[in-house]
Amino acid sequence: MVKNSLGRLIPETFHGRPLTPYADPFSLRPTGNVAPRPLRRVNPGAGKLLSGLREAIEAAGLRDGMTIATHHHLRNGDLLLGMVVRELDALGLRDIRIASSSVHPVHAEIIPYIRKGVISAIECGVNGPIGEMVSKGELSCPVVVRTHGGRARAIISGQVPVDVAFIAAPTCDEYGNMNGFYGPSACGSLGYAHTDAEHARCVVAVTDNLVPYPASPISIPQTLVDYVVPVASLGDPKKIVSTTTRITTDPVGLLIAKYAAQVIEASGLLRGGFSFQTGSGGISLAVADHVRRMMREQQVKGSFGCGGITGYFVDMLEEGLFQGLFDVQCFDLKAVESMGRNRSHMEISADMYANPFNAGAVVNRLDCVILGATEVDVDFNVNVNTESNGYLLHNTGGHSDTAAGAKLSIIVAPSIRGRLPIVKDAVTTVTTPGETVDVVVTERGIAVNDKHVDLKNELLRRKVPVKDIRELQQEIYQITGRPRPLEFADEVVALIEYRDGSIIDVIRKVEE
Amino acid sequence: MVKNSLGRLIPETFHGRPLTPYADPFSLRPTGNVAPRPLRRVNPGAGKLLSGLREAIEAAGLRDGMTIATHHHLRNGDLLLGMVVRELDALGLRDIRIASSSVHPVHAEIIPYIRKGVISAIECGVNGPIGEMVSKGELSCPVVVRTHGGRARAIISGQVPVDVAFIAAPTCDEYGNMNGFYGPSACGSLGYAHTDAEHARCVVAVTDNLVPYPASPISIPQTLVDYVVPVASLGDPKKIVSTTTRITTDPVGLLIAKYAAQVIEASGLLRGGFSFQTGSGGISLAVADHVRRMMREQQVKGSFGCGGITGYFVDMLEEGLFQGLFDVQCFDLKAVESMGRNRSHMEISADMYANPFNAGAVVNRLDCVILGATEVDVDFNVNVNTESNGYLLHNTGGHSDTAAGAKLSIIVAPSIRGRLPIVKDAVTTVTTPGETVDVVVTERGIAVNDKHVDLKNELLRRKVPVKDIRELQQEIYQITGRPRPLEFADEVVALIEYRDGSIIDVIRKVEE
Repeated sequence: MVKNSLGRLIPETFHGRPLTPYADPFSLRPTGNVAPRPLRRVNPGAGKLLSGLREAIEAAGLRDGMTIATHHHLRNGDLLLGMVVRELDALGLRDIRIASSSVHPVHAEIIPYIRKGVISAIECGVNGPIGEMVSKGELSCPVVVRTHGGRARAIISGQVPVDVAFIAAPTCDEYGNMNGFYGPSACGSLGYAHTDAEHARCVVAVTDNLVPYPASPISIPQTLVDYVVPVASLGDPKKIVSTTTRITTDPVGLLIAKYAAQVIEASGLLRGGFSFQTGSGGISLAVADHVRRMMREQQVKGSFGCGGITGYFVDMLEEGLFQGLFDVQCFDLKAVESMGRNRSHMEISADMYANPFNAGAVVNRLDCVILGATEVDVDFNVNVNTESNGYLLHNTGGHSDTAAGAKLSIIVAPSIRGRLPIVKDAVTTVTTPGETVDVVVTERGIAVNDKHVDLKNELLRRKVPVKDIRELQQEIYQITGRPRPLEFADEVVALIEYRDGSIIDVIRKVEE
Repeated sequence: MVKNSLGRLIPETFHGRPLTPYADPFSLRPTGNVAPRPLRRVNPGAGKLLSGLREAIEAAGLRDGMTIATHHHLRNGDLLLGMVVRELDALGLRDIRIASSSVHPVHAEIIPYIRKGVISAIECGVNGPIGEMVSKGELSCPVVVRTHGGRARAIISGQVPVDVAFIAAPTCDEYGNMNGFYGPSACGSLGYAHTDAEHARCVVAVTDNLVPYPASPISIPQTLVDYVVPVASLGDPKKIVSTTTRITTDPVGLLIAKYAAQVIEASGLLRGGFSFQTGSGGISLAVADHVRRMMREQQVKGSFGCGGITGYFVDMLEEGLFQGLFDVQCFDLKAVESMGRNRSHMEISADMYANPFNAGAVVNRLDCVILGATEVDVDFNVNVNTESNGYLLHNTGGHSDTAAGAKLSIIVAPSIRGRLPIVKDAVTTVTTPGETVDVVVTERGIAVNDKHVDLKNELLRRKVPVKDIRELQQEIYQITGRPRPLEFADEVVALIEYRDGSIIDVIRKVEE
């Protein structure tokens, strides 16, 4: 065990992999080259259409011990990963690693196959039951949680070589050109799948909407796709995207949003060329609403909105408040529809969105990002992976990527959640290091990272309720009391990998 | 020297490179991986904007013996290659190889720098004076002529590692996102530059139209671009694209076009899903006009048009005769404008267009291509590289790529050009092997490759003037006489590389 720079104890290896402890957000530099990828030859006349997933698994030469990937654009409506895993089992394959972009509660259906040894490791973040069971020691399956940018880095650099990528393709032609804009399983951007298509040894497009050649527009081209498999359905459209995302109506949330907007205004960043990201949560959207009104009033013409895109950002684009949108993932139906219509609503890969190891990701250009938290601590470290019970329940997403990239990263969270304080002495799990977090906004006050003295003074001048983070913590503790520390065993069941591949924290088994 | 399968004498090496003689169009398979490419890291706050080309050459670490690339989308209006070469000389660099996508007559300006040793080799096809001087032995500079697909293959496979790509970017932002659609040097598709951007060790975007971040749409993304250099002008817009391309009015050309259209009709390929490529020549466009009328009359809804795109194909797209256009290069202003407007007019890379070593190029899906020739021979081999004087004057372009990919490749050419016969016993230089050429159409008759017995019979049934190719040749010889053979020295001055990297022919020094 060694301590990383945040004082977290990191083992020297994890299931045979030597680990690099996290040091700081920016200084780890890549060595070497983009991972090797085999050259192919497909001659005229050769087809790619196969009868089913089983045939594709066989054609791809998938064997015991190999790694597969899917994307999570179909979210909790995704049927593909389950279908693939059942076929792996039917073919008698064992010890397969899953390196999908994320795993959702719907994928609880693969738990029996983890127990059976079909699946032996999960090289991605998990949302829901699998993480909980791994935390409890009920499921033996090492998990490595990565950021969106970190996953792209891991695949591109060869840290995680993907043998076969199964790409759910909402619209696809028989030669493998695909997009996510149209069809019964339309999900909009296929941002997470681009890296898989470019780097997997073998690429299988799976579609429930086979269209005449050529599909148009093309998000992922035929040159990268080896096989095309038509299936009856890729997923449940109702669970793929929300029909709409809404601003919070909760007064606490509205107050937090108002404070966050005041921080943005005080930062001086809201000027021509402003760039902005929020999530799809009700508070985030309320902040976006404030920003929109301020941009209108001050006649600010913004540069771009990015990240997971909601209809709210589409409205801002169409109103001329942004020059473009960078969309790695659509959060609602309005965003999906916009992609098929607005050319300046641009699909980007997770690599372009957030990979630290390329010639410059979009997050590097962000002025301001609004992020959530399950906990923060007095060093501004943020946890989004585990909840108060210590269970691994959430994937990191773009949290640490955008915090590192943005000039101003603002955490918005109610001061108390489920009777527990949001600010702790130390977060259970560090997802995002405090050195990349600028401001924490609660309804009880705003804490500004010490590195932003000017911003703090400007907020004080504007009579916004700025408090020292320890002062804020004590105020909350007076209501909630000091939370009882969780009990963990020594056993490490999962890694929290920082975007550069170093280990920022680990998940230990929870003592029941 | 060894004979390749077409009987051409190929040396075992060329300037130290071991050569593989051409065997057949489809059986050579790639071994190994995509060429390695260094991982980069660009942190937030780091800029890419440099003051000029000299600074970029220094920042890129360009040294003696290295290889540079530019693209030829600005055609004979391109000023960038000349600017770069002058800076190389000013910095005292020597022995630099040029691996551009093509070199045009305007680039005669680099001849003094070849003589001076700044430039020591040209790893691409040449149009105009450089090829002529190399053929005459007046310029010592080995040339390797490649097809569009073959160039993509050479770069992707690492056969030609590009150290620094200088990409003329008609629209570009300060972080390197670019497109070719807008600006004073607008050229439309940047198809040839994609491979360079993805595989060069260092990528420099050079622009005369720096726009606020982000440029939109994005043809080549920021993640691949290391530096951005603003310049006053990339080129002469009048020489970049034609304002319009026109159908021939010459009666010989019109007769050839009519025959070619009859061949297409007789082939049975003109049905739903028809795909088609022509060049921008007057005869080609006349064939396109026939095809358009037949598609209308027969209510054929085509699949795609591809290649270099003209306004003629844009009209067909907008009329609904094609579902999409695949554009590796715009041939006229109307095509450029269409790219900014029609989303189904899709920019594709040369890799996607024609590389034989990927999971399937667009040419593989072509039904019919109309191609030109400077000569054909009785084995249907075609020459487009050298003219009757034996001088290397033309690049191959997509000639051999589309001939190999299309179900029906039709050569259209007048039977006599400059008092010389179009059909010879053996072409001076084999560009495209006869086994991939299906029909030769002249105003004096049509020759069908023996492998298409059914097509030949159908044409005879339709009373189209089909002739055996030797019969056609004799008919032409009766007018022109048998041409006097050219005299060549033994010295090999250039290679004609087939799309798969094997050597289909060589260019020898012409004896004066």
